[in-house]
Amino acid sequence: MAGAGRFFEDFIVGDVIRHATPRTVTEGDVALYQALYGSRFVVQSSDAFARAVGYPRNPVDDLITFHVVFGKTVPDVSLNAFANLGYASGRFLRPVFPGDTLVSTSEVIGVRPTSKGDAGVVWVRTRGLRSDGAPVLDYVRWVLVRMQGGRPVQDTVVPELPSVVDPSELGQACPRIDLEKWDDAESGSARRFGDYAVGEKIDHVDGMTVEEAEHQLATRLWQNTARVHFDGFAQKSSKIGRRLVYGGHVISLARSLSYNGLENAFHVAGINGGRHVAPIFAGDTLYAWSEILDKQPLPGRDDVGALRVRLTGLKDCPPTDFPREGEDGKDHAAVVLDLDLWLLMPR
Amino acid sequence: MAGAGRFFEDFIVGDVIRHATPRTVTEGDVALYQALYGSRFVVQSSDAFARAVGYPRNPVDDLITFHVVFGKTVPDVSLNAFANLGYASGRFLRPVFPGDTLVSTSEVIGVRPTSKGDAGVVWVRTRGLRSDGAPVLDYVRWVLVRMQGGRPVQDTVVPELPSVVDPSELGQACPRIDLEKWDDAESGSARRFGDYAVGEKIDHVDGMTVEEAEHQLATRLWQNTARVHFDGFAQKSSKIGRRLVYGGHVISLARSLSYNGLENAFHVAGINGGRHVAPIFAGDTLYAWSEILDKQPLPGRDDVGALRVRLTGLKDCPPTDFPREGEDGKDHAAVVLDLDLWLLMPR
Amino acid sequence: MAGAGRFFEDFIVGDVIRHATPRTVTEGDVALYQALYGSRFVVQSSDAFARAVGYPRNPVDDLITFHVVFGKTVPDVSLNAFANLGYASGRFLRPVFPGDTLVSTSEVIGVRPTSKGDAGVVWVRTRGLRSDGAPVLDYVRWVLVRMQGGRPVQDTVVPELPSVVDPSELGQACPRIDLEKWDDAESGSARRFGDYAVGEKIDHVDGMTVEEAEHQLATRLWQNTARVHFDGFAQKSSKIGRRLVYGGHVISLARSLSYNGLENAFHVAGINGGRHVAPIFAGDTLYAWSEILDKQPLPGRDDVGALRVRLTGLKDCPPTDFPREGEDGKDHAAVVLDLDLWLLMPR
Repeated sequence: MAGAGRFFEDFIVGDVIRHATPRTVTEGDVALYQALYGSRFVVQSSDAFARAVGYPRNPVDDLITFHVVFGKTVPDVSLNAFANLGYASGRFLRPVFPGDTLVSTSEVIGVRPTSKGDAGVVWVRTRGLRSDGAPVLDYVRWVLVRMQGGRPVQDTVVPELPSVVDPSELGQACPRIDLEKWDDAESGSARRFGDYAVGEKIDHVDGMTVEEAEHQLATRLWQNTARVHFDGFAQKSSKIGRRLVYGGHVISLARSLSYNGLENAFHVAGINGGRHVAPIFAGDTLYAWSEILDKQPLPGRDDVGALRVRLTGLKDCPPTDFPREGEDGKDHAAVVLDLDLWLLMPR
Repeated sequence: MAGAGRFFEDFIVGDVIRHATPRTVTEGDVALYQALYGSRFVVQSSDAFARAVGYPRNPVDDLITFHVVFGKTVPDVSLNAFANLGYASGRFLRPVFPGDTLVSTSEVIGVRPTSKGDAGVVWVRTRGLRSDGAPVLDYVRWVLVRMQGGRPVQDTVVPELPSVVDPSELGQACPRIDLEKWDDAESGSARRFGDYAVGEKIDHVDGMTVEEAEHQLATRLWQNTARVHFDGFAQKSSKIGRRLVYGGHVISLARSLSYNGLENAFHVAGINGGRHVAPIFAGDTLYAWSEILDKQPLPGRDDVGALRVRLTGLKDCPPTDFPREGEDGKDHAAVVLDLDLWLLMPR
Repeated sequence: MAGAGRFFEDFIVGDVIRHATPRTVTEGDVALYQALYGSRFVVQSSDAFARAVGYPRNPVDDLITFHVVFGKTVPDVSLNAFANLGYASGRFLRPVFPGDTLVSTSEVIGVRPTSKGDAGVVWVRTRGLRSDGAPVLDYVRWVLVRMQGGRPVQDTVVPELPSVVDPSELGQACPRIDLEKWDDAESGSARRFGDYAVGEKIDHVDGMTVEEAEHQLATRLWQNTARVHFDGFAQKSSKIGRRLVYGGHVISLARSLSYNGLENAFHVAGINGGRHVAPIFAGDTLYAWSEILDKQPLPGRDDVGALRVRLTGLKDCPPTDFPREGEDGKDHAAVVLDLDLWLLMPR
């Protein structure tokens, strides 16, 4: 049946799935992204600024690229998923501009049935490409997918994944930046790459309350077809009892909130890892804080450096005390998102 | 008084009303349409795909054209309507692209006072035109309009309407499609015109819950001024007690849901008939299913054929059993939309 | 701390603040403005109409310019404000088109500590500029800003503000209009400048109910960072107990409603004064009415004239009786907005 999705047994390591539907990104998407998340990073916000520092025009937010590429994978990868377990090894390979058409493919790189035998973990490497074949994004995610049952189950293959993306792979994310033209009054802060210290913690201050209409608009905008996000009638009789907010919505909210304190971190260049620790629902307010885990120069680049940032999303809990682990060493009850990113920043 | 609208007595058969306000369709509308309905039909979604198969660029969704043309008629035709009774004889006459400016006119083609004497049915033929005069859409709708009272009532004229649009009139809806370039992996299905059978029923699987903010955004986007959709204060003291969702919102949701199973049905070319069987409200979840009523070649065209599809919209009722009529022969209680369309599909 | 904002003591008369983040206005913003407010003024709605009467293309709504310019000032001016007290001396200096990048600066022109000593009034003149330096908007607003305490307090300076903008300063807001091409059927009314009388009151008829998702989308779209609008968790423990709707959202709703009766008032050219009399909240329905206060020719222009209009916004109260002052001479309980504008209209 159309729209039924794949079950665990349908995923064979080595298979490559071409996803429907290619989608052209436009300035309409940019405005909606703005309205949904309130982003203020200057290179994406100002065409004049972007041109001045070296872009052909202002690129779209990196997470627009992520959402469009991700959305296409849902009907083929995660329609029957119980959970989206994690991300790793993500690289943004080239800026995306309005007018670019994006397509996605996913290669199955790992499968492991659970001991309970009703589901299994599936790892896919998803590639986002422009319609001319140029790669724009590449990342691994793994999901817990329902078994259909009564069918043979494939042998376990667990892929080896790097714990961190090598900084030498991050340089493609942006053109050479003309630092002479980088105006800190316009970007919102004079703090540059050299001003951040490893171990530093940053309170992003603001909180954003999520409404049903907002996350539904987002989910549909990115052609994400996971029913748990927009079928309130079916969700009523589910265990959870209500609609779930798309995890990518939480990522974008946290990234936008992180402008307060990371104003010049103009590009997401890599996703070292990430987990949706807990779901959020309409009515919840998301806060965020960041810890600087590392900072690295980019080989051959004296214009920008890479900050490794652990971005933590919190539900109904201002990040004053930077909560992450509870006393038991487990995730603090308020943590909903734990994301390990490489961000580019002018030097 | 401005904004008061016409009463039944104001409609004279033969009168042609030029509607305000012309409106330029943009990529912003396309993105909002995406966010509101989650459409995935490939020709509208991908500029690269559309160009490859024969369009000058990707056209906007046919229902954007419908909503823009329809919205303009509301202040002049249905501001004092009790109900939107039906549609017939609709033809999409040419693709619409971002940048096109659309205007509407309506010709009064029928009037019939009700026996109760407080209202009457008004039939109008609405024409949507580009600002250069090229027609883009043409359809008949009829509405039940309040009488003002104390004025002479015009003689009954009931227009003859075809029960189905002749397939020979559908070819203008799209350019010749280069089937060599139609990539089923991108469109989302290998099922083409030849693969559907008359009588076949298709479960569109997904459901979408409607929020007040969503249908209000839609209503205003299309400059539809019917107060019942956005004046919650006035609606509280109305018989129905709350805001009504714009019927066109339901049509677009049903059409977008129909992608599951009708992936290649890339154009709405004709509206044979349609009824809003029951209103829907915020919080309701819309499901949809389709029955293939007929299939016809287009004269002189070997690239696309026309599927006649009866698209049924259901409220809070997954379409597993394809409900339409109850045991009494009347509409099933869950049915909210009954639409008879011609859809174009590659051969 | 990033995102902490300025306190009363930080405002020194004569200081000029350059605000982050410049923002490029696009057709995406235009579509969202449409969806949020349902505007129908023809010059902004129709590219074909705008070109015909003398524009290089259709400009964006004047209030898009206002919101973008205003939004930038919030992190620097009003993040610690108790209240937005008023506007004056506003002039729209040039049409803005999709593709224009806007920046803002604010000059501190007055400060006055309150007698209670925990806050003070700050007056700023905000200038909106295109990235090429061309001015687009100029207005004064004053806000009640919290004191941080324990710091010296500056001497009182109260700026002199004109009670009305001189009509000779309004002509830059639009190009010369070719009246031959102004089609009243398209604009929606044959009533022109000459048809309005000073003292005339206009009921704008419709009401719009505001949803949380809507005003949050608006606030973020304009990069307005005032937390009271989108942090529901923090607002729960505030005195007011819930999120406040951004005042500019109310202004745009009132202006859009005013189309009914002021169809040809195609440009806001000046803001003589304005007050947010009371807050509105999600669930409230906004109505509006206008009184014509004055009408003036523009020096050297025979194409358009300026109507001085007092636009009153009402909450949950249709404007049938044109309420403004209660019996005690104070604002009527339903009044939420009191705005004194110059509007341009063809002659």
